[in-house]
Amino acid sequence: MKAVIFDKKLQYTDSYKKPVPKEGEALIRVTLAGICNTDKEITKGYMGFKGILGHEFTGIVEEVNFSDKTFIGKRVVGEINLGCGECIWCKKDLERHCPNRTTLGILSKDGCFAEYITLPIKNLIEIPEHVSDKEAVFTEPLAAGLEILEQLHIEPMSKVMILGDGKLGLVTALALNAFGINILLVGKHQNKLNIAKKQGVKTCLLNDFDKNMQFDVVIEATGSITGFETSLTSVKPKGVLVLKSTIASSKELNLAPVVINEITILGSRCGRFDPAMRLISTGRINFFDMISGIFPIENAIEAFEANNNSENIKILLEV
Amino acid sequence: MKAVIFDKKLQYTDSYKKPVPKEGEALIRVTLAGICNTDKEITKGYMGFKGILGHEFTGIVEEVNFSDKTFIGKRVVGEINLGCGECIWCKKDLERHCPNRTTLGILSKDGCFAEYITLPIKNLIEIPEHVSDKEAVFTEPLAAGLEILEQLHIEPMSKVMILGDGKLGLVTALALNAFGINILLVGKHQNKLNIAKKQGVKTCLLNDFDKNMQFDVVIEATGSITGFETSLTSVKPKGVLVLKSTIASSKELNLAPVVINEITILGSRCGRFDPAMRLISTGRINFFDMISGIFPIENAIEAFEANNNSENIKILLEV
Repeated sequence: MKAVIFDKKLQYTDSYKKPVPKEGEALIRVTLAGICNTDKEITKGYMGFKGILGHEFTGIVEEVNFSDKTFIGKRVVGEINLGCGECIWCKKDLERHCPNRTTLGILSKDGCFAEYITLPIKNLIEIPEHVSDKEAVFTEPLAAGLEILEQLHIEPMSKVMILGDGKLGLVTALALNAFGINILLVGKHQNKLNIAKKQGVKTCLLNDFDKNMQFDVVIEATGSITGFETSLTSVKPKGVLVLKSTIASSKELNLAPVVINEITILGSRCGRFDPAMRLISTGRINFFDMISGIFPIENAIEAFEANNNSENIKILLEV
Repeated sequence: MKAVIFDKKLQYTDSYKKPVPKEGEALIRVTLAGICNTDKEITKGYMGFKGILGHEFTGIVEEVNFSDKTFIGKRVVGEINLGCGECIWCKKDLERHCPNRTTLGILSKDGCFAEYITLPIKNLIEIPEHVSDKEAVFTEPLAAGLEILEQLHIEPMSKVMILGDGKLGLVTALALNAFGINILLVGKHQNKLNIAKKQGVKTCLLNDFDKNMQFDVVIEATGSITGFETSLTSVKPKGVLVLKSTIASSKELNLAPVVINEITILGSRCGRFDPAMRLISTGRINFFDMISGIFPIENAIEAFEANNNSENIKILLEV
């Protein structure tokens, strides 16, 4: 089958072995897939991953290796973490923290930049009829944004800043905005900020940002050490700095303000799909403006190059 | 008056000007004072402080510049932060986060390594008759340990590790132990661990510590970057790492595990005195074993040297 693989370098192939669903799993024909910056990081060596990349997708169930066949023919998205099913994390429906988990296209499991994937049936969520694939393919990043609301009680009067207008910052801004939260999105790209602005989000260019402003919650979505430092100085005492992207410091990092101002730093990763799909199905978010390009899977290398262009937002692969 | 001052270097003087209480303030004759590692940090330039050092004390009120004179003659301890009284922090009794605060012996206010200090009357707490000065002088560090309980709900089944058996780690361990919390104190000094062990705390030498153990809450009380890293690997996914001491990283710091495991890092500084004094007055904690030496204030330089000896715990100054 067609697949985009990473093994020291990014490659496209049309002769990858089609996967076979294990018991309890579905075989899904992928229709649309999104490139995430995690995919880019993987091509630089992150997670030491080898195999088919990709973890954002829509697809159609072709087979199920299970007695209940009702999912066959359904349009679906799917949760990307596969737990052992036995540990305390799995028993709490927190497969994403199972120490023995695999993760679609990220950790020891082939991903969705391919014609077919397998996933446990319990990971699947049907896409409502009125939701298009181009919207549903945002379920995974939207779930990551909404994870913040699962971890943190943001009060109606809380002032929230989101730093970074990349894919993650934008989706998170639109997600929280859909919940009526008072946010300011700060970024470097007027064209990206405008997408959020059109949907009612307050925005500000980083150059115009008043560094004396202080927020109850700051969401760091730049992944850079300077972004982390700006976030830290923009949180009120006893406020919360949400870390949405992984940061490896390459310079001296002073955590003293965290103690002095009693800041909470909250690491935040994947979220549940169900609330994300519920939000998508309300139609409150316009995802289309965030799609900067759609490439056939055969042109995946070109698609990754487009993803590297900081003017672009979401790049999709059509399978 | 006698005073221990820092101005580029640590000095003892017997001719410092006696302070005069402002309206609403008390003049307190200091009887006993404790050396904290923050004092040591200040002598290395922390906070850019100049003036009389010291923020842990017991004393007797000699004068009050206020209509109500009931505090005169009372043995007291006192909260160390002085707020502006007008901002939202002060209105929430959080003077310790007032942006215009001064802090006894730390920030723009002379401290307690002296014969006399002034403090607002509302900062004072009377020492109960059955509590000795040698116990009451631990109110400030004990309040810092108890601050964790104000910030964080530690559940009865939570497993808590405290890393570091210095003054802060020991006092925090004894404080949480007094609340029946399941803690393991990990440190490098068997003599210090034994003090906690005698009072019912489970302890472990760092060399014997099983690095695969995972805790719901890890309290970092070493102030070192390696301590921070050990803490981070010892927190369960979705667990809390409490930062009790200020850390400036001098090497590359990888915060990716914070995001991947959705760790909360909680900065924690000063606490309220009232619950600390209540705990001291129960007699549940033996503080005497932590006192490694008592020096007359005239020998303060020698006392600071004793504080630098890692075998010692709390060094007191008698005024």
